[in-house]
Amino acid sequence: MSWENNVRKVVPYVAGEQPKNKNVIKLNTNECPYPPAPGVEAVLNHFDYDVLRKYPDPDVADLRTVLAKRYKVPVEQVFVGVGSDDVLAMAFLTFFNSEKPILFPDITYSFYDVWADLYRIPYECQALDEKFEIKKEDYCKENGGIVIANPNAPTGVAAPVSMIEEIIKANQDVVVIVDEAYVDFGGESCVPLVEKYDNLLVVQTFSKSRSMAGMRIGFAIGSKKLIGFLNDAKFSFNSYTMNATSIIAGVASVEDEAYFQEITGKVIATREWTKQELARLGFTFTDSKTNFIFASHKSIPAQEIFDALRENQIFVRHWNKERIGNYLRISIGTDEEMKQVMEFLENFINERK
Amino acid sequence: MSWENNVRKVVPYVAGEQPKNKNVIKLNTNECPYPPAPGVEAVLNHFDYDVLRKYPDPDVADLRTVLAKRYKVPVEQVFVGVGSDDVLAMAFLTFFNSEKPILFPDITYSFYDVWADLYRIPYECQALDEKFEIKKEDYCKENGGIVIANPNAPTGVAAPVSMIEEIIKANQDVVVIVDEAYVDFGGESCVPLVEKYDNLLVVQTFSKSRSMAGMRIGFAIGSKKLIGFLNDAKFSFNSYTMNATSIIAGVASVEDEAYFQEITGKVIATREWTKQELARLGFTFTDSKTNFIFASHKSIPAQEIFDALRENQIFVRHWNKERIGNYLRISIGTDEEMKQVMEFLENFINERK
Repeated sequence: MSWENNVRKVVPYVAGEQPKNKNVIKLNTNECPYPPAPGVEAVLNHFDYDVLRKYPDPDVADLRTVLAKRYKVPVEQVFVGVGSDDVLAMAFLTFFNSEKPILFPDITYSFYDVWADLYRIPYECQALDEKFEIKKEDYCKENGGIVIANPNAPTGVAAPVSMIEEIIKANQDVVVIVDEAYVDFGGESCVPLVEKYDNLLVVQTFSKSRSMAGMRIGFAIGSKKLIGFLNDAKFSFNSYTMNATSIIAGVASVEDEAYFQEITGKVIATREWTKQELARLGFTFTDSKTNFIFASHKSIPAQEIFDALRENQIFVRHWNKERIGNYLRISIGTDEEMKQVMEFLENFINERK
Repeated sequence: MSWENNVRKVVPYVAGEQPKNKNVIKLNTNECPYPPAPGVEAVLNHFDYDVLRKYPDPDVADLRTVLAKRYKVPVEQVFVGVGSDDVLAMAFLTFFNSEKPILFPDITYSFYDVWADLYRIPYECQALDEKFEIKKEDYCKENGGIVIANPNAPTGVAAPVSMIEEIIKANQDVVVIVDEAYVDFGGESCVPLVEKYDNLLVVQTFSKSRSMAGMRIGFAIGSKKLIGFLNDAKFSFNSYTMNATSIIAGVASVEDEAYFQEITGKVIATREWTKQELARLGFTFTDSKTNFIFASHKSIPAQEIFDALRENQIFVRHWNKERIGNYLRISIGTDEEMKQVMEFLENFINERK
């Protein structure tokens, strides 16, 4: 017998590349092209480092309080974690403990099946339709829980909240997680439904619309009961997941609503301009409500475009997977970056003709 | 059927209180009384907050590299996490997957049984002897894994590395975790044994000897194979657990070895002085090799002393638990703080006579 027999063997999630070279156009991990709110810089540069000798507030009260105010819910209904991945992983562990399979789309955030495998949770993927849309009826059968990214990634497609609500209604005996990582770029949030459904957990992140991927902050809003169970699991895992700098930086971000509106508005405007350009160049794409566009060219294979972009220091994301192998996921950068990318694509496509 | 039936219900770990009032003598959570290395302040106050828009390095290469150099192991043998709690929780999940019980002492870090419960890992506590020492033979029977805090908490007792090695030798078919959270205050580390035993995981933390509890950094050293499995689980949980500030602050801390030696030396000196004082006042205690003392008074019940201290804004730790109910765990503060506490105790004891 070897100790290796008792190891939980898993195949990890593979995140998008973080190139060391800074002279690249990085459109591969859906980061925001603008810096965090100016208040974040201020609090970090005046940070009293002496407080680091003490443990941070395990309840993360300051950050949960500003989030509660911003999302108009009681503070007991807010949970925070080390990015939405931490929140989602903890939610999978806490809520999906039945023998029945949990349900999520076949094309979605590819961490869902990794968490299910990690915790040995049975799951069944439900095929999106040919327009990459969710079919409601797929989620109205016996299951151990439901996870829906809305807007979805990597497709960018948003389902109407009315449809999500019908799914929640039909699944009162399990927890329904709505992953709203990209909701701030034109999607409609399910947060208002939390009041009506105590089995709904809405998860969001600071990594995209708040431009703080490097700080690792995610949060969830749900009923007091749901958040209570999630807290019990979290406090059985690590008393202090949020360090002192992430707490103060997170608070500074939430307090600057104007800046948040400004940068999300800019990303949306650049995305809509990029859509026009891509259409002109012969791409088709979904009506993205996120900070990326999921696009396919009418004649040139995605892999070929991906390779050409990469050779020219432009990083986008491509998966060699069924159904989406001919698509590229292109994050929205600054206007200048997107102009450069469109110019490159125009030349590349013309030369290839 | 309610969704609550599928919830993983757990009883969370209760961490020591973090009083909001700053005018207290806080000796209840084994924090270091001195600030982190000056370099930590420098890197935070000159932090380029613009990098926060991007994800941090998922491999945490910079921090793992300085740790590898400091502990004289290849970088592939170093794992980092959000405090040693994160590292230990991940190690329990990864390595303890047999039907046989894992073994740890009856009096030890009270998170071990919480993690075991969270992950539904069977466990059996082994009674320390009357001097709060480990009995080697208790760990030389069939088991699913072993966890030993060395030096132990809350007792402060250090086992000789030769005894730990005998336990490892007798348990080649399971993973043995040695939790060295307090080793830098005079204990002997098992890190050199990692080269000989590929089933040994040694866990340490920045929270005590590096004075960075607020930054949440822990690490583990083990064989390349062991660390590989741990990484697979970690990357199946959260791609980026360490945020950008914790990485640079951690590096700055490890780079200042002189400061590390200085503050751990000061804590040790203060501890030895405090031992003399406590003995003079009628306390008995173990020969602590940590940054706290586990003490019991010859005539006054611990609860009574605890209450009196607390009323006077002096926080120490006390557990209403079998075998240790008459002990107080007193963290080592500055010389000035310990002098004040000893003066208070002297008066309190004299008045009570």
